[in-house]
Amino acid sequence: MTESEFLNALRRLPLHPGARGLLDDAALVDAGPLVLTTDTLVGGVHFLPDDPAEDVAWKLVAVSLSDLAAKGARPEGVLLNYPLAGGEADARFLAGLDAVLRRFDVLLIGGDTVSLPPNGTRVLSVTAIGADAAAPPRSGGRAGDSLWVTGTIGNGGAGLAVARAGEGPAALLSAYRRPWPRLAEGRAVAPHVHAMADISDGLLIDATRMASASGLGVTIALDSVPLSPEVRDWGMGAMEAATAGDDYELLFAAAADWVPPVAATRVGSLQAGAGLTLTDGGVPVALPAQLGFQHGG
Amino acid sequence: MTESEFLNALRRLPLHPGARGLLDDAALVDAGPLVLTTDTLVGGVHFLPDDPAEDVAWKLVAVSLSDLAAKGARPEGVLLNYPLAGGEADARFLAGLDAVLRRFDVLLIGGDTVSLPPNGTRVLSVTAIGADAAAPPRSGGRAGDSLWVTGTIGNGGAGLAVARAGEGPAALLSAYRRPWPRLAEGRAVAPHVHAMADISDGLLIDATRMASASGLGVTIALDSVPLSPEVRDWGMGAMEAATAGDDYELLFAAAADWVPPVAATRVGSLQAGAGLTLTDGGVPVALPAQLGFQHGG
Repeated sequence: MTESEFLNALRRLPLHPGARGLLDDAALVDAGPLVLTTDTLVGGVHFLPDDPAEDVAWKLVAVSLSDLAAKGARPEGVLLNYPLAGGEADARFLAGLDAVLRRFDVLLIGGDTVSLPPNGTRVLSVTAIGADAAAPPRSGGRAGDSLWVTGTIGNGGAGLAVARAGEGPAALLSAYRRPWPRLAEGRAVAPHVHAMADISDGLLIDATRMASASGLGVTIALDSVPLSPEVRDWGMGAMEAATAGDDYELLFAAAADWVPPVAATRVGSLQAGAGLTLTDGGVPVALPAQLGFQHGG
Repeated sequence: MTESEFLNALRRLPLHPGARGLLDDAALVDAGPLVLTTDTLVGGVHFLPDDPAEDVAWKLVAVSLSDLAAKGARPEGVLLNYPLAGGEADARFLAGLDAVLRRFDVLLIGGDTVSLPPNGTRVLSVTAIGADAAAPPRSGGRAGDSLWVTGTIGNGGAGLAVARAGEGPAALLSAYRRPWPRLAEGRAVAPHVHAMADISDGLLIDATRMASASGLGVTIALDSVPLSPEVRDWGMGAMEAATAGDDYELLFAAAADWVPPVAATRVGSLQAGAGLTLTDGGVPVALPAQLGFQHGG
């Protein structure tokens, strides 16, 4: 597609009124205090060259909505930074974008469409805007807090392995390619928790970051990490699941006597001190060489 | 740099209080109705491989601030999507980022730092947030409006030629590498104009887009297009200057009897109808094959 064709197609997506029909270089949002988050996906790093363009669009938006979920925000809209791919891929990207926007009731606010040099790396960014957020910080954890996760851990990582292998359970592949931002869960727990984040780089590294930002240490009980039947059948253990990225479940710290109003699993606690302690059956176990995925690390 | 090193360096830049020390995946902004704009620069398309990393940082932020200027907004802050380059380039990018943020009193709100595959294309994005904007739309032009531009036209395009040639006037090179967003001018005229945009792809194409968005035609008098002495000395004529991009001057339409309170030049007018009419010495002249720069066109 040309830039004009792509822009005309974008105008048929659910548009934010502040987008002014995408005729402007800037958009207006008047929705009270806003939560802002931005994410970049790189071809060959965050998605595979043969991941379908529809799924790349879904994932791009979903990972940013996951950051809004971690603040308990209602999504207001997204801005898209898109390099034209040429051929069918642009139309397929738009179809996936339409699907994810409609599924999560999100509006397109604006963006920038550019061209790449021949064989240029696909680098896509999205900025998501949320409103009406309790916005618990990553750094608000308190000593004695229980640490909870939504859903199950390792599905995204196992799904990546399935995508690379070219065969495996569809549920895992879908978890990797079409992650599900926990928007409803985030809104339900955000007003009650001390700290919250989504799990994008791996449970262990994201829990350690939360503890560190809160000036605390963290203990995770490996045997309490919830694994899906598909992940177990795939042969992935708790340690591997807890260091795999791409899960987009929510991780939150809350008073030990509080019980979440949504499905969640208690996986550990925060305590005075620093760093990560892992246990299995109540016994401390050695830390893995890598706690999760770190860019440029 | 690793992601951690880069993040630690970012934390030494002027930070928005809502950035929460960049310890969160999302930022909070409470500044009333906001203007949002996002821009992407691609290595080999929007900047040259040997453009200094400091200047790439400056330009990335400046082009987005230019969109805020076109809305008459006060910059509130920016979010950055940055692929690590490795080596000295990351530190030099940070130095340029620090310079442009401080020069225009802009705060860092957040961002996402990623790694690229080896020899990956440099694709950088920034999302700029502005507040307190009169926000004249691109589409608000009225028949009979005068069309004005700030500054001079063609400096950016001539500067690109200088960069490619490897020698030439420093003022032109600087106009290309370190464009100056017209924030003060934008705030002064925004409450009084009917339509405003910045000139990023070329005067003729951006004026035609404004007319088209307003449902009007536009006439530009080539002999009134303001050229700097450096552009004249470089041998660039008005037609070439008016079709060159990268200027980041403001283009605005306002009632014919209104005179701007800032330095500006009247270059034409909007009228009923459609499309672009060019004149030189009052006589219509043929349109050039390309009105400006269009991505994927």
